[in-house]
Amino acid sequence: MANLREISVSAALNLLSAFAFLVAFAILRLQPINDRVYFPKWYLKGARSSPSRSGPSVNKFVNLDWRTYVRFLNWMPAALRMPEPELIDHAGLDSVVYIRIYLLGLKIIVPLAVLAFLVLVPVNWTGDTLEDIKNLTFSDIDKLSISNVPDGSKRFWAHIVMSYVFALWTFYVLYVEYKAVAAMRLKYLASEIRCPDQFTVLVRNIPPDSDESVSEHIEHFFRVNHPDFYLTHQAVYNANKLAKLVEKKKSLQNWYTYYLNKYERTSKSPTTRTGFCGLFGNKVDAIDYYSSEIQKLSEAEASEREKVLSDPKAIVPAAFVSFKSRWSAAVCAQTQLSHDPTIWLTEWAPEPRDVYWSNLTIPYFDLTIRRLLMAVALFFLIFFFMIPIAFVQSLANIDGIEKVFPFLRRLIEKESVKSVIQGFLPGIILKIFLIILPTILMIMSKIEGFPSISSLDRRSAGKYHLFLLVNVFLGSIITGAAFQQLNIFLHQPPTEIPKTVGVSIPMKATFFITYIMVDGWAGVAAEILRLVPLIIFHLKNTFLVKTEQDREEAMDPGCLNFATYEPRIQLYFLLGLVYSAVTPVLLPFIIIFFAFAYVVFRHQVINVYDQKYESGGSFWPDVHQRLIIGILISQLLLMGLLSEKNIEKSTIALIPLPIMTIWFHVYCKGRFESAFVRFPLQDAMIKDTLERATEPNLNLKDYLKDAYIHPVFKGRVYFESPQMVSDEESNTLVMTTRIGKQCAESSSTNSS
Amino acid sequence: MANLREISVSAALNLLSAFAFLVAFAILRLQPINDRVYFPKWYLKGARSSPSRSGPSVNKFVNLDWRTYVRFLNWMPAALRMPEPELIDHAGLDSVVYIRIYLLGLKIIVPLAVLAFLVLVPVNWTGDTLEDIKNLTFSDIDKLSISNVPDGSKRFWAHIVMSYVFALWTFYVLYVEYKAVAAMRLKYLASEIRCPDQFTVLVRNIPPDSDESVSEHIEHFFRVNHPDFYLTHQAVYNANKLAKLVEKKKSLQNWYTYYLNKYERTSKSPTTRTGFCGLFGNKVDAIDYYSSEIQKLSEAEASEREKVLSDPKAIVPAAFVSFKSRWSAAVCAQTQLSHDPTIWLTEWAPEPRDVYWSNLTIPYFDLTIRRLLMAVALFFLIFFFMIPIAFVQSLANIDGIEKVFPFLRRLIEKESVKSVIQGFLPGIILKIFLIILPTILMIMSKIEGFPSISSLDRRSAGKYHLFLLVNVFLGSIITGAAFQQLNIFLHQPPTEIPKTVGVSIPMKATFFITYIMVDGWAGVAAEILRLVPLIIFHLKNTFLVKTEQDREEAMDPGCLNFATYEPRIQLYFLLGLVYSAVTPVLLPFIIIFFAFAYVVFRHQVINVYDQKYESGGSFWPDVHQRLIIGILISQLLLMGLLSEKNIEKSTIALIPLPIMTIWFHVYCKGRFESAFVRFPLQDAMIKDTLERATEPNLNLKDYLKDAYIHPVFKGRVYFESPQMVSDEESNTLVMTTRIGKQCAESSSTNSS
Repeated sequence: MANLREISVSAALNLLSAFAFLVAFAILRLQPINDRVYFPKWYLKGARSSPSRSGPSVNKFVNLDWRTYVRFLNWMPAALRMPEPELIDHAGLDSVVYIRIYLLGLKIIVPLAVLAFLVLVPVNWTGDTLEDIKNLTFSDIDKLSISNVPDGSKRFWAHIVMSYVFALWTFYVLYVEYKAVAAMRLKYLASEIRCPDQFTVLVRNIPPDSDESVSEHIEHFFRVNHPDFYLTHQAVYNANKLAKLVEKKKSLQNWYTYYLNKYERTSKSPTTRTGFCGLFGNKVDAIDYYSSEIQKLSEAEASEREKVLSDPKAIVPAAFVSFKSRWSAAVCAQTQLSHDPTIWLTEWAPEPRDVYWSNLTIPYFDLTIRRLLMAVALFFLIFFFMIPIAFVQSLANIDGIEKVFPFLRRLIEKESVKSVIQGFLPGIILKIFLIILPTILMIMSKIEGFPSISSLDRRSAGKYHLFLLVNVFLGSIITGAAFQQLNIFLHQPPTEIPKTVGVSIPMKATFFITYIMVDGWAGVAAEILRLVPLIIFHLKNTFLVKTEQDREEAMDPGCLNFATYEPRIQLYFLLGLVYSAVTPVLLPFIIIFFAFAYVVFRHQVINVYDQKYESGGSFWPDVHQRLIIGILISQLLLMGLLSEKNIEKSTIALIPLPIMTIWFHVYCKGRFESAFVRFPLQDAMIKDTLERATEPNLNLKDYLKDAYIHPVFKGRVYFESPQMVSDEESNTLVMTTRIGKQCAESSSTNSS
Repeated sequence: MANLREISVSAALNLLSAFAFLVAFAILRLQPINDRVYFPKWYLKGARSSPSRSGPSVNKFVNLDWRTYVRFLNWMPAALRMPEPELIDHAGLDSVVYIRIYLLGLKIIVPLAVLAFLVLVPVNWTGDTLEDIKNLTFSDIDKLSISNVPDGSKRFWAHIVMSYVFALWTFYVLYVEYKAVAAMRLKYLASEIRCPDQFTVLVRNIPPDSDESVSEHIEHFFRVNHPDFYLTHQAVYNANKLAKLVEKKKSLQNWYTYYLNKYERTSKSPTTRTGFCGLFGNKVDAIDYYSSEIQKLSEAEASEREKVLSDPKAIVPAAFVSFKSRWSAAVCAQTQLSHDPTIWLTEWAPEPRDVYWSNLTIPYFDLTIRRLLMAVALFFLIFFFMIPIAFVQSLANIDGIEKVFPFLRRLIEKESVKSVIQGFLPGIILKIFLIILPTILMIMSKIEGFPSISSLDRRSAGKYHLFLLVNVFLGSIITGAAFQQLNIFLHQPPTEIPKTVGVSIPMKATFFITYIMVDGWAGVAAEILRLVPLIIFHLKNTFLVKTEQDREEAMDPGCLNFATYEPRIQLYFLLGLVYSAVTPVLLPFIIIFFAFAYVVFRHQVINVYDQKYESGGSFWPDVHQRLIIGILISQLLLMGLLSEKNIEKSTIALIPLPIMTIWFHVYCKGRFESAFVRFPLQDAMIKDTLERATEPNLNLKDYLKDAYIHPVFKGRVYFESPQMVSDEESNTLVMTTRIGKQCAESSSTNSS
């Protein structure tokens, strides 16, 4: 265990590296050439069209104004300055609610830290157990932790009372936050401009009808069962094959542009090979080859497009049904239509850009089987992922590499290279697995069959949270692979598990402090630097960009990756809650993380990220639930820890805590969750009435006509043939991309 | 452990006692004087108005026709003869679905028994472990059970395979049954005649409004938010005090009638005392006294009635809101009205006679607190109920009784009486507790605040099921009080618990066989004899009956007590499932129980019981869920048992079983549960359209006007003063009681 001095050194080092990241960021962001990497949001908003500074041409790429470098941290106050309502307008409610999670962390942990330092640290410090046992090594940090209080001491009452205070404070903050987020969501929904999803319901599992086409069947069914309200519907085409063709054509077009650029620069006709990745096969003229390939694909695409549109079998048994008013859409989304609850399933239509098109047609029985299989798979992934990793690690040794890549033998067999490979390779394989893990979890969620991207994100986040809980939190406390822990847990009484874990908690404080600094602080600093998008942008810029519009395309603002980031935040919450009563010294490190991350993510949300969809903060119930799980874990572990301190009787005083927590969860769920799941009729009625009064002549049917068509059908003149690329043409191209992004605006122009 | 011969003797004895009950029943039911005890249903239906046989006057009381006694079991085929659709008309869907539970028992257990006897019994019989160990006592039954298979034998594969076959068969039967019940319910709802609850929604937690009365507020709110559909509403009065007065008056009136009868018979003016129970206080003329008391109460009641009706504060923030069509009521019941989900809560209105009036006004926060408290209370009741019982038992010894009732001293101090008291008293106290337990659980459910009697019954059944599971099933297998078991379970690994319980399972087979015979067989036979209602009817008949209508009142048909009976059936299911793979010899006993109970309850439903409400079989999801719990327990216990047999590796083959079970439950829940919770719009629309076509001039508002008024306001001329009792008057009295029972009929007369 490290003492205070070692921790301080480590903290200083980590602060320094974070500082270096920040300086790098400060320099890079001021270069006009990086403007589209660090401020893409403003380009998308239309507020900037080219790097702002004018002057000599070198200034277009490098910023030579030394004064701007001096104020290298001035992005921080700028990030904090934008008020919340403006931020909602600017970046959407999802982003605002997301960065509130960091603020919530501060709201919970700061008062906990203050109280813990005022009450628990003095109690622990004067406990004097560790002074007595001179022969044991102990660190300064342990003197401030609960380990310093002698067994059976009356001092533990301070910890018990404080754990109640902590719990009550956390409940209070969580309650206020849930209330605030629910109010924000309701206000957002109420103030939102007209959107197609307000009038539309996604209907799935439409039963086949022998006499009618799907489309007729839908129309008849709704004309009968919602006679006064049914307006129109949009059938869903099975355009998965078409989407693949479009995707492929786009990639070919990139290569085409690349070779065209190369040709223009070098004036030498570039060649390529027709085989795999351009590495094998016959040598051909690249520009001709890609141009003819694109031509071929365009024809295939056109015929497929025709086929999908004309073939009645291409219409899947799902549809977006629109109603005359928000009230009637709300009614249809919340009620059951058929007495067989597995057909005519209705739910709120997701936003057009939020729809996950491939999942709209899965039959009910398949869905339940898929979810069962994925639950089993998740269990194995969480507890047994080390087994395949170890297998791959055993394969990926020097001999294996030599066999597959014989030409590397000379390099590898050098002693120094060999030892580096042998030392790092297993770690790298594990790291690669951890990097692709969110993707694996997302694929699992997709298999489960949820129909919107936002719900897929939420499901993946839940899975990742479980993984982190078992493999990072428990895995760090009880060393050993997860399946070994599972084995231990299965063969221990349920009361023993919190004890086993609880007693190890104080000993792991220094490890987690280091973890917070390396993973938390440095991770956030790396987040703001955006190294990968920076490199990719410059690569694209060099090879693929021909016009200003191409440059806009090359810009990848990315988006808040809720499914990955949020479970990681939960880990910091968990650490804060667990250590608040045990080793309060850990809390300041978490506070720094939350504060730093808050500023950084606020900056990113304002300047960089462009959300793929807007769900109106519908992930908050999940966040709340995972926080409750964190609180429960911290309480159980405290009980386990204290019951090993010879004060079993006063441990009973802690039993009401988890019961209170569960009750609090149930209460909050009943009180607020429905704001995230259902849409109240009263609010719908108010909006409808208002709209009817202000726009009596609105043609809603026209407005909704094309709102829910598969993205491959949007903007039919997507890209006809490479010969025809003109400024005008690619203008449409960007417009169509925009449609995907700004449903509201483009749709309202439709309706006029 | 008993051997086969002892079990046979016990079975014969129990069969004999059941037979004696049946003979007693056969004799008693044929006496015309008991006709109203054994055939009350037909009186309520109006099919009989007096015992059917005519002839000399003695025949009115005793049946002298010897031929009828010979065919003393002919009620059995008669009970089976009525076809199911007719039975639904006759007794309601609840009763029909309830007796299907017994039939379901046969459908599951009979094939299990056949298979087990064909496969497992030979495998066990030839296992020969117990022959080898000569010095151990073993019984013939154990030779047929799994205990006879040697440890580590390959024969256990037979048990593993059979447990899969059993599970699959059970799933199949449960699925078909759930489907059938759901279809019955939907058909019942679709074919049902017009009922007020089809058009009505119960709205609770109406927020206070400073400008409007509750009634105005409701009307305005619904006129705005359901503009095209709102029809009318019925405010709920806080008439709890008035109901108490009415109750009290009725009891006084009984005493009045009693003394009047006494006076008529003896021509001597009876006296009573004014104090507690007529035991203390001044002696007065009884008739005068009660007549004046009733007069006083009538005045108090009238003024209270006036007060409730005129005082705006007597209107509670809950109401029954009626709509113009079933479709719109279904919409309102399933959607959320306000964005605050704790106000304007809507749900399907229960039937008028199903409403539990006192629970309509509990605020949302109180509800969650009440449920938390009751959950904690239930935990203590289940695990620690023995502690207060033991305390009472320690008080209720000879000395205690002498202190409280000194006049009993001479009797008690006789040696023989003393030993009897000391021997039986503790058992009697426990028995009394077990008899009042369902009442305690019902009170707990009432505190939880459910608004309908049917939901209270379902909640109580759930609690009772847990109690039986822990204290009867586990309590019999692991001897020791429940809190000792809890202690054991808390200090054992989760994998050890099924082992501990599992290995005791085979040893308890003979105990459970005896239990089935004593509690099951004899219990069912006692059920049909109706000893308590028989005695009470004859007491009332002697002392309180003046007119034929009074006699009808004295008749107490009772009703199927779902909250008590159903959890007991679950115990037999559990025993059948647990022992099917372990000791198949137990199964025939369960089959006899199910078959016998099926016939008896079918008879009771046809001839005796009159349901208090009709919920359309809405308890089936609970029954299904508890059966799933039984299957899970049986599977876990089998795993525990086998893992102790040195074949741990093949035990792993059982792990998919509980996962399959849970998935099956989730699937069935999604597939069928909504039929019991929601009302599909399609069905509502069909009924509405049909009604509009057949009865275009129906005045629905008139029809619904008085449907949901508190029972004390029904039939205002309830009982004005004892002097005015006339045939006509008491006719209204019976009519009003009928209104409560037959909502549909009386309401449809209202509407004409």
